Amino acid sequence: MRRWLAWLWLCALCLLAGCAAPQAKAPVDLPSWADGPSRSAIVAFVNAVTDPSSPDFVPQEERIAVFDNDGTLWSEQPMYFEVLFAFDEVHALAPSHPEWKTRQPFKAVLEGDKAALAKSGHAGMMDLIVATHTGMSVDQFSQRVGSWMQKARHPSTGMLYNEMTYVPMRQLLDYLRAHGFKTYIVSGGEVEFMRPWTQAAYGIPPEQVVGTALGTEFVDAGGTFQLMRLPKLEFNDDGPGKPVAIQRYIGRRPILAFGNSDGDLQMLQWTTAGPGKRFAGLVHHTDSKREWAYDRDSSIGRLDKALDEARAKGWTIVDMQKEWKQIYVTDKP
Amino acid sequence: MRRWLAWLWLCALCLLAGCAAPQAKAPVDLPSWADGPSRSAIVAFVNAVTDPSSPDFVPQEERIAVFDNDGTLWSEQPMYFEVLFAFDEVHALAPSHPEWKTRQPFKAVLEGDKAALAKSGHAGMMDLIVATHTGMSVDQFSQRVGSWMQKARHPSTGMLYNEMTYVPMRQLLDYLRAHGFKTYIVSGGEVEFMRPWTQAAYGIPPEQVVGTALGTEFVDAGGTFQLMRLPKLEFNDDGPGKPVAIQRYIGRRPILAFGNSDGDLQMLQWTTAGPGKRFAGLVHHTDSKREWAYDRDSSIGRLDKALDEARAKGWTIVDMQKEWKQIYVTDKP
Repeated sequence: MRRWLAWLWLCALCLLAGCAAPQAKAPVDLPSWADGPSRSAIVAFVNAVTDPSSPDFVPQEERIAVFDNDGTLWSEQPMYFEVLFAFDEVHALAPSHPEWKTRQPFKAVLEGDKAALAKSGHAGMMDLIVATHTGMSVDQFSQRVGSWMQKARHPSTGMLYNEMTYVPMRQLLDYLRAHGFKTYIVSGGEVEFMRPWTQAAYGIPPEQVVGTALGTEFVDAGGTFQLMRLPKLEFNDDGPGKPVAIQRYIGRRPILAFGNSDGDLQMLQWTTAGPGKRFAGLVHHTDSKREWAYDRDSSIGRLDKALDEARAKGWTIVDMQKEWKQIYVTDKP
Repeated sequence: MRRWLAWLWLCALCLLAGCAAPQAKAPVDLPSWADGPSRSAIVAFVNAVTDPSSPDFVPQEERIAVFDNDGTLWSEQPMYFEVLFAFDEVHALAPSHPEWKTRQPFKAVLEGDKAALAKSGHAGMMDLIVATHTGMSVDQFSQRVGSWMQKARHPSTGMLYNEMTYVPMRQLLDYLRAHGFKTYIVSGGEVEFMRPWTQAAYGIPPEQVVGTALGTEFVDAGGTFQLMRLPKLEFNDDGPGKPVAIQRYIGRRPILAFGNSDGDLQMLQWTTAGPGKRFAGLVHHTDSKREWAYDRDSSIGRLDKALDEARAKGWTIVDMQKEWKQIYVTDKP
């Protein structure tokens, strides 16, 4: 009896001290995932690699999970949100750039002239990125992104951009971390565009964000030091660049990868080609009511070759419309 | 009385369950550091940034500590150990390269002809690196490095290379981690040369190793996938490259940095220029008996400008001869 009382005491004190035994962890589940094939595949995979008695057990330090961002963790229509940020920044910076009133592609952005913008093509887009992303310190850019994320609104939904992250995917990140996974973003987005907000949005700290990189230079301005952002693309973290970046930054092959487009194909191939049990997932945008429906014909997040390969190889294809009970935090669950 | 018994029970069970309260952690100390200015500075800094009631308190997630490797965590004489690895690899690979018998700088390495080797200069060194580090997959290279580390011996000490890591610095890494720091290597060494052994040697996992990077290419060879190492220098992680790499890979400014040469100067400047309390340390090679003594005139690990700046700014300069009771694990403590 005394032992039993002592045990009760132990439990009570442990809880008070935040000193719970492993099996007493707060349950982390996937409530926004419908009971369907994707949810089952995720749970079966996590159970297999985390059960020490399973032949597929993977030690905790090797449980690396990588996620694309645009279209995988948040929306990407009608345009990558980083490009919408660049448009907003052109408006914000225009007063100190009177020449933009007559110079393309800035004129097109300021006037909302989509045809002229489209005509400016890839070179025009790079001009916009250079004008809004570089020529300032890393700290200054980080502040501009942070400030934009707090007040900018999406053109069609009117939501804050960080409200357009996917609740089921945030639950998946929590679920994986609760099972000892280390979660990374591996995105075509520019790395410093993501870092100011990924911790709050996804629980992913700056050092676990891998992305496209612009040039950076260490500048000693008479005893004060800055890291200045240069108008130069140093690394394009897309397609075959993704496995290269995973090796460069992480140095381990992931055991789980999630993407949504052909730009993620090589990351999924690299992840699944390793020995042991592996998981590859694709978010398939099938919900024109709550989000957007697109795949093979979209210019943003085109999912064509990766869809074929996923079907051929039995990767998990998440049907957003059927498998997600809720998409955004503002949706009714 | 019953409460007191319950408390005893709690303590006993907690210890059995490995569920100790934070203050009951196994003590991690710095036994190989003599009671001197460097040890005092380290302890004072760690106490200041980890005490929640201190004005200098730093939240755990921002306790980033970065360490140079060559000359800071292990020795670097008579030549960076990675170069000695390249020499050993030339000998190991020579049977399948008969042309090396007559081609410089390979001939010089095979014959131990130091004059001819020196004459081949920087271009010759790059030829050796390309021949021994590239043209194979990341996995193959990792295996070669791991195998070398297990059997290769240093030319003058006869020790295994991983026995030439510094006991006091390994204790410092442990001490910092026990106080919530995340420890990184930021080295001029090639990143894939370090990753196969840094976990065992320093407790630093692959994803916390930043280094010089050679090119890598994702190759789809008919459904099997490889990351192939290319004969191309992509990033030189030395001097001003170190703060750039810290930002690119980690995305946070460290609060503690340790180096030993002018190649670490900008990393120390960047670390100490941030707001709040910061720590910059230099390992000063002053022990010609147990290790080597060198600074301003050495071609390896030259410490000149950084020594002046450290003295001017009051950074911690570790006098190895006076402040380290033990250097290698084989030394008598």
